Amino acid sequence: MNYNQLVEEIKIKKSLLCVGLDSDLNKIPSFLLNSEDPIFEFNKAIIDSTHQYTVAYKPNLAFYESLGIAGWQSLEKTMDYLNTKYPNIFTIADAKRGDIGNTSKMYAKAFFEHFNFDAVTVAPYMGEDSVMPFLEYENKWVILLALTSNKGAFDFQMHSDKENRKLFEKVLEKSQEWADKTRMMYVVGATKAEMLKDVRAIVPEHFLLVPGVGAQGGSLEEVLANGANSNGGLLINSSRGIIYASNDNQYQSRAAEEAFALQKLMKTVL
Amino acid sequence: MNYNQLVEEIKIKKSLLCVGLDSDLNKIPSFLLNSEDPIFEFNKAIIDSTHQYTVAYKPNLAFYESLGIAGWQSLEKTMDYLNTKYPNIFTIADAKRGDIGNTSKMYAKAFFEHFNFDAVTVAPYMGEDSVMPFLEYENKWVILLALTSNKGAFDFQMHSDKENRKLFEKVLEKSQEWADKTRMMYVVGATKAEMLKDVRAIVPEHFLLVPGVGAQGGSLEEVLANGANSNGGLLINSSRGIIYASNDNQYQSRAAEEAFALQKLMKTVL
Repeated sequence: MNYNQLVEEIKIKKSLLCVGLDSDLNKIPSFLLNSEDPIFEFNKAIIDSTHQYTVAYKPNLAFYESLGIAGWQSLEKTMDYLNTKYPNIFTIADAKRGDIGNTSKMYAKAFFEHFNFDAVTVAPYMGEDSVMPFLEYENKWVILLALTSNKGAFDFQMHSDKENRKLFEKVLEKSQEWADKTRMMYVVGATKAEMLKDVRAIVPEHFLLVPGVGAQGGSLEEVLANGANSNGGLLINSSRGIIYASNDNQYQSRAAEEAFALQKLMKTVL
Repeated sequence: MNYNQLVEEIKIKKSLLCVGLDSDLNKIPSFLLNSEDPIFEFNKAIIDSTHQYTVAYKPNLAFYESLGIAGWQSLEKTMDYLNTKYPNIFTIADAKRGDIGNTSKMYAKAFFEHFNFDAVTVAPYMGEDSVMPFLEYENKWVILLALTSNKGAFDFQMHSDKENRKLFEKVLEKSQEWADKTRMMYVVGATKAEMLKDVRAIVPEHFLLVPGVGAQGGSLEEVLANGANSNGGLLINSSRGIIYASNDNQYQSRAAEEAFALQKLMKTVL
């Protein structure tokens, strides 16, 4: 998907919502466990009930990998379903990969060719040649970790140089040499919403993928106030708050309600 | 595997060799492509011909993920084979994972429970809570990226603070609060062998996983001179130089020769 197509979908749906598919056998409604592929059935039901409010879905790879081959199959089916039934919705492999060039190339092949994701999250620690292989695909995106939403973000991302420039700021600056706003986004955690202003000073135009709204404690209003730009410029993720809003037979309608509640707030800035 | 068992294996074999299983359908001998599972057949053949010189095997996850379910199956079979036939050889999932706590927990489950690896490589960018879930398993190890062997290592790993302390040095220092030498190792690239002395000044006792000998240009002699400690203290990886030493029907004996040549040099420091 290219930049204009993503912006168009945001304008049509008046939404910046990304739904995180952190699908876990221990948390989905127990009556689904009797089906042939419980994780796929759950994802399909969540997607069907939330798609009208949603511009992006973000499967979290760890949840699928922890189930071995069965998890890999559930992910393949989920991506086939999304790409066939909802081709205008952006898809993100939340994989946080990053390795030497010839290895990153294989990860890019896995996510962009095998699964046909639109984007993959990439960790910046290994630098330029660990990121470039993901940028060799037309209309595919890198979402680079900049400032994450967890407590450990303070351990290294705030490491300041002599000019008081923090590591995450250096990541934002340096990586703009690798791709522009049509190929790259940044992960910026919602739990540090006041810092979105600092981020916007460095990357005014880029999309930011903002995790941490809801279960991780970030405020949506603050994110919108500090992070939105003229094209929206944000993909705001909620995972557990939507997909596990209920685990009884009302789980689809409850997920839809939670997604709609977030979209209602989002449309005020669009 | 615990620290003493690993040291024992190193002493018995007089070897520090780790063989990287970066197994690629485009590079393995073409006559294997007719078998039911070419990647597993290749890995099995490489393992059987190199195990007497080898203390660790390191499958590179990207190469398996790029093949989808078939790749996942090849990896499961490879790990079953290693754990059954060569239980004294250390196994490393070269996965470079790292995410918020509840996600890292799922990755730990995938590699330590599902596949039964001894260790997993972890990227430090997201800090303490992204690493800790991997340390909750007894006799399982984290191998944290510190100073990698690629060109991009200079982009962020050398980011220096006011006291001229580089990011990779901060990673080495800070992470010692999380686990000791019996649970944690560090990735330090062989292409920066002269910097191994700086690394050893911070972590004199820990094992270092050293990639980049051979195809990536690092010198084994320099690594041994600057990095070895009284227990060996190194796992030195070679991937392409061994597993693709030949792609004709001599590939097993050629892999064995290359492994033996490295082990001969290694035994001089043991």
